[in-house]
Amino acid sequence: MNATIIDGRKEAALLRERLRPGIETFLREAGRAPGLAVVLVGNDPASEIYVQTKARHARSVGMTSFEYRLEYSSGEDEVLALVDRLNNDPMIDGILVQLPLPSHLSKARILQRINPQKDVDGFHPVNAGLLAVDEPGIVPCTPKGCLHLVRRVCPDVTGCDVVVIGSSTVVGRPAAQLFLNARCSVAVTHIDTHDVPAYTRNADIVVSATGVPGLVKASWIKPGAIVIDVGITRIHGADGKGRIVGDVDFDEVRKTAGAITPVPGGVGPMTVAMLLENTWACALARHGGGAANVPADSPDQ
Amino acid sequence: MNATIIDGRKEAALLRERLRPGIETFLREAGRAPGLAVVLVGNDPASEIYVQTKARHARSVGMTSFEYRLEYSSGEDEVLALVDRLNNDPMIDGILVQLPLPSHLSKARILQRINPQKDVDGFHPVNAGLLAVDEPGIVPCTPKGCLHLVRRVCPDVTGCDVVVIGSSTVVGRPAAQLFLNARCSVAVTHIDTHDVPAYTRNADIVVSATGVPGLVKASWIKPGAIVIDVGITRIHGADGKGRIVGDVDFDEVRKTAGAITPVPGGVGPMTVAMLLENTWACALARHGGGAANVPADSPDQ
Repeated sequence: MNATIIDGRKEAALLRERLRPGIETFLREAGRAPGLAVVLVGNDPASEIYVQTKARHARSVGMTSFEYRLEYSSGEDEVLALVDRLNNDPMIDGILVQLPLPSHLSKARILQRINPQKDVDGFHPVNAGLLAVDEPGIVPCTPKGCLHLVRRVCPDVTGCDVVVIGSSTVVGRPAAQLFLNARCSVAVTHIDTHDVPAYTRNADIVVSATGVPGLVKASWIKPGAIVIDVGITRIHGADGKGRIVGDVDFDEVRKTAGAITPVPGGVGPMTVAMLLENTWACALARHGGGAANVPADSPDQ
Repeated sequence: MNATIIDGRKEAALLRERLRPGIETFLREAGRAPGLAVVLVGNDPASEIYVQTKARHARSVGMTSFEYRLEYSSGEDEVLALVDRLNNDPMIDGILVQLPLPSHLSKARILQRINPQKDVDGFHPVNAGLLAVDEPGIVPCTPKGCLHLVRRVCPDVTGCDVVVIGSSTVVGRPAAQLFLNARCSVAVTHIDTHDVPAYTRNADIVVSATGVPGLVKASWIKPGAIVIDVGITRIHGADGKGRIVGDVDFDEVRKTAGAITPVPGGVGPMTVAMLLENTWACALARHGGGAANVPADSPDQ
């Protein structure tokens, strides 16, 4: 029996569709479209693609996308000054700084400069903290997308045993927090873990965010488990052509798992959709005068 | 072979001793002692004891303790106004609001009113977020004490398998974050977990913070594991006398574990010692003109 393939593209399209009516109303009432600002420092080709994708999808649902491209060599003061301007710009509801940043810049200082109420990536410590204490705040897009996809096949995850592989502050950790808030038991494993499969073999849900192609094997997965593959690694085949692969040995794991996200077409499109949801929530909050309290656990999201 | 008993009282005394010289110097240079403000709303007897203990130990290391007792029926505005005054008081380096608060008050709103740079309990979302993203900030006292005690018997915890029982925002979750930052693999279990011993039986380190006496049994513990008991529950014996017990079946688990903290005399004294350390760090930061590991340019301050 093969795993259910969780179609991230389809889910993302549904989410985008659901946003459009509200955004049209917003445009009429506020006299402007919700605005998303994306800042890119440098010319990393993958980052350029991500920025264009985000901008394109933002426009597709009726938002305005403001893109800012700074030279790789930009100084920190320059980047901070731009963030300050965007914080103060009434047309901008959400601000995203595309990672990775050039190494001479302090990611922490730049991300912490973003007004937490416009922090659509949810990386600001205030939002990370609100997630940690299970209070309403802005939840990072990829973890949010992961939980959404899990809920497509398992609406109630209470008591599920979850293993997150990868402890990055942008994916693994907030994913762990989000699943914990959803009443799962959660284990976080990473590069220092002695025996990752000893954890994953007992898991109902495995979320892998390591960037190591082929890491997650069939023998690592309990039959019937849900496997969420966050990996995005570009590899080159024998034909020289590049393609994107995840962390999971998809062809083998799909024979064991109950459900699995493909790469591409799984988590990736959901990340963008959640970005639009977060931006929409920020716009509503700003327009309505309240705080961008996006319920991270809403079954409809 | 019986477990090493990790003596929290002794460790706490050592820590307090190490603080005194610096505080004496501070007094000479700053012209005042570091100041800790403790706010107690209502008359919960256990809370009263905790407040007195904290104040006493603060004074014992040369700090000034400012205690504020408000009526149980105090309104939220009144408590917030007091916090505002303490935030602005130059003699006060650290502010602690004793929990639990009366149920008519919003714990979130009150804790979030504390200036993150004076948040010596580390409960403010800014500090919770800094911990979550592994950036310098103020770490909650009890988790900090737990890690300190573990390190007495195991200085390098890299790669250790840790299970935290209990997912409270004040202990279990920050403890999980702290051990994750220390490069442990960490699982968080709680009341919705289907099979806690299935987790703990494989753990090198078990931190139990549930308030359920006798929960953690010898069969739950891998031989040689380190057991940190955060439980503080008052029970009454057959003689009618009250005593404090932890979560762990101490007499049985000590035969299996490699090391164990007693209750009382384990985690409790360390929590207070860490409070003094946090307060000292805040005083140093304020006196030196820098930030107590909280970014000075965080927009939400």
